[in-house]
Amino acid sequence: MAHERLVEEMDARVREAQEELVAALEAADGPGRFGRDAWERPGGGGGVARVLSEGALLEKAGVNVSRVHGRLSPELASRLPGDGDAFAAVGLSVVLHPRSPYVPTAHMNVRLLVHGEKAWFGGGSDLTPHYLFEEDAAHFHRTWRAVCDRRGPAWYADMKRRCDDYFHLPHRGERRGVGGIFFEDPPCDLETGLSFTEEVARAFLPAWLPIAERRRAQPWGERERAWQEIRRGRYVEFNLLHDRGTVFGLQTGGRTESILMSLPPRVRWVYDHHPEPGGPEARLLEVLRAPRDWA
Amino acid sequence: MAHERLVEEMDARVREAQEELVAALEAADGPGRFGRDAWERPGGGGGVARVLSEGALLEKAGVNVSRVHGRLSPELASRLPGDGDAFAAVGLSVVLHPRSPYVPTAHMNVRLLVHGEKAWFGGGSDLTPHYLFEEDAAHFHRTWRAVCDRRGPAWYADMKRRCDDYFHLPHRGERRGVGGIFFEDPPCDLETGLSFTEEVARAFLPAWLPIAERRRAQPWGERERAWQEIRRGRYVEFNLLHDRGTVFGLQTGGRTESILMSLPPRVRWVYDHHPEPGGPEARLLEVLRAPRDWA
Repeated sequence: MAHERLVEEMDARVREAQEELVAALEAADGPGRFGRDAWERPGGGGGVARVLSEGALLEKAGVNVSRVHGRLSPELASRLPGDGDAFAAVGLSVVLHPRSPYVPTAHMNVRLLVHGEKAWFGGGSDLTPHYLFEEDAAHFHRTWRAVCDRRGPAWYADMKRRCDDYFHLPHRGERRGVGGIFFEDPPCDLETGLSFTEEVARAFLPAWLPIAERRRAQPWGERERAWQEIRRGRYVEFNLLHDRGTVFGLQTGGRTESILMSLPPRVRWVYDHHPEPGGPEARLLEVLRAPRDWA
Repeated sequence: MAHERLVEEMDARVREAQEELVAALEAADGPGRFGRDAWERPGGGGGVARVLSEGALLEKAGVNVSRVHGRLSPELASRLPGDGDAFAAVGLSVVLHPRSPYVPTAHMNVRLLVHGEKAWFGGGSDLTPHYLFEEDAAHFHRTWRAVCDRRGPAWYADMKRRCDDYFHLPHRGERRGVGGIFFEDPPCDLETGLSFTEEVARAFLPAWLPIAERRRAQPWGERERAWQEIRRGRYVEFNLLHDRGTVFGLQTGGRTESILMSLPPRVRWVYDHHPEPGGPEARLLEVLRAPRDWA
């Protein structure tokens, strides 16, 4: 498939996935509704941001698509595979910040990047609980394992390891959460890559929603809220210090509000915070410091 | 003065300034008290973090000193003036996050960096109001103008411009606040640089405290608090995306909690927030988008 056709095809599929995700998340939330902001990029292309604020299940959620093209700075061009300075990117990005500290934050994104003669897919999905429920982490990983196993026996193990490596805060000695999958230029042809990314987008709700339904009614108070907001601070640190998509988006003139919809609604930084030894907050940290096999 | 002597001298002066600042800020706060955490860096050196949380005037404040030495990564070494991979750094860093949205956030830091045969001073101070009071911005800038004018007629104008350039969030089209001064390797010998940095450290309280005293009793409510927390989000974005000191500190194995004490205590991100046209929040944004001369 020529790259231009691939871009068209990916664009159609991420727009369809966006509609489906918005409808399903509104149904799950109850009163919450997603807004809709279409935007254009001065250098070429644009996108549609669908953001929900102050829902019942979701305190803030974004389901965004973008399709942009233009010229890369020499510095950015030299850091990417491919050649020349022409690029195109099509992507879908989902970030869910639930209201309850017992419902995990979750993220999924898929994208196609074209740089000169090179085109490749990338993306992933990861789960960021504030309190650890082992069966939730296992369910999330098993969902991704099933998606990967249809493609090749080594796919899940490889993408799980990459996810642990990627969502890493070296200055904290922690992972962002319990991981999931992360892929960049998977070992397959582009048509297979396209259908794999579509399956990743479709598997996100089955991976997250059963966990959310299981935990949403569990009562919580100020202790759990404080911990959730402190952990959200780590989410901010990762996204602004390390996330390549955030930095790439801001450097290539993407729409700031669409890119930074990933940041949580309310966040705390408490100097030198240490949770009570042996408590559920400390048990989460153990897992963030030493990733486990969940599937 | 040999570089080793200079490091000793700078170290003594920043420790003295730390004591003075902590005492004066505790007196101004009332009930608030600074904790004291001494730390050592595995690769060489260490520091003392003095952090106050949940005071009356100050919601969170840090007055930190550090003196570290060791080896730079090849990448970091190539990006700094000087030669080889040996480095030493001595610094004082102050960040004040007041409780009242009418009292401006403020920052000051001074530091000495030694990289091989090259040694140079740097630092600055900037004011981040959430509501604009022109006389406050003027007082802050006039204090720095007086410190600079004693050294040379062009110092203030140059350091004011550098400050506007440095505390810039290109993705927002905004400055972090109303500026102040920023300097890096000022045009003087090292002994003059040492005494200039000492004067900068001493001028910080006269620059900020009269403003804080003037505004601290002004009543505020949820509207002002929400705006303060949204603006604090921009402070986080600047520090994690752009601040060289933060990135340098984290990359050279500085103590994470000391470096990130600069982050505000409570922060909000509201998707695509626009203040009411013509209101005081919108008036602040005008000044952040087009820096003015204040002195």
